[in-house]
Amino acid sequence: MSIATDLSASEVLGIAIKSEIDAAAVYDHLAKKIRNRALSEKIIFLRKEEEQHRRLLEEMFTRNFPGVELLLPEKGLHPEMNMEVTRNMTVPELFELAMEAEETSRDFYADLAEKSKDESGRATLRYLSNMESGHYYLLKTEYEMVTQFPGYYEADDFHVGMDLIHVGP
Amino acid sequence: MSIATDLSASEVLGIAIKSEIDAAAVYDHLAKKIRNRALSEKIIFLRKEEEQHRRLLEEMFTRNFPGVELLLPEKGLHPEMNMEVTRNMTVPELFELAMEAEETSRDFYADLAEKSKDESGRATLRYLSNMESGHYYLLKTEYEMVTQFPGYYEADDFHVGMDLIHVGP
Repeated sequence: MSIATDLSASEVLGIAIKSEIDAAAVYDHLAKKIRNRALSEKIIFLRKEEEQHRRLLEEMFTRNFPGVELLLPEKGLHPEMNMEVTRNMTVPELFELAMEAEETSRDFYADLAEKSKDESGRATLRYLSNMESGHYYLLKTEYEMVTQFPGYYEADDFHVGMDLIHVGP
Repeated sequence: MSIATDLSASEVLGIAIKSEIDAAAVYDHLAKKIRNRALSEKIIFLRKEEEQHRRLLEEMFTRNFPGVELLLPEKGLHPEMNMEVTRNMTVPELFELAMEAEETSRDFYADLAEKSKDESGRATLRYLSNMESGHYYLLKTEYEMVTQFPGYYEADDFHVGMDLIHVGP
């Protein structure tokens, strides 16, 4: 990914942190649009994970650039992840955006890990990459339900066989 | 999987429910052994997911066998998941057990989904299979950290570069 080679390490960390902030905001927005409590809790779990990643990256910044002020770029890896755009998106569309963003983040961290010369930095970046990959699969599993069974996310709770009225192909 | 063909549908559901109960208990036990709050929260998330699966399967049972009493077998899919065995296991050992169990459950549900003649039952079982697969990847990601960096799960909180003292090969 060219973004990681053309920029300084501190700029790359800034982009990563901004991206985690954006992702957490999208999950927060998505969770509020979902009435199914179990599903909503899963999305809140993802929001918390992205918040944890942000803290992790901020610590990494402080350790690598002591005394340097962290400047966040206006845009992260996923520029479409801003409330102007996401406000009017449907639940399935938000899932699609989030899945795409998780894939981008997975590749971004994997690429950074390869470039990192520091052992603990490399391990952390690989860990972040694997986590985003896990998020992608979690979202994909739920996305299949969301698109096949609209009642799934609109219902207060999930009832097998009652809400599961198949409308897909 | 022969277990699904030699038994009645109600017996199979009983085994699945018992297995989810056992898995939730192992996650509860594991979460208590972990001092790293972020990691412990992840394991609690998994416990809640298995509890949700249990409710889902119980609803499936009630719908398919109205008026029939749900009898749970003594052993589920993972007989080693009982406190007699797990009490003395280390954190990495518990991760290994949980990962193996998630793989078994993933295959079990996938197999049942294929055999199911009911569309909503099939969708639910596929969904369960995909969820267990997601759990496996979440555990695998954390397991790599747990085995490489023992300080990771023993620390109250996770500090990049400070706790990340590499001990692996």
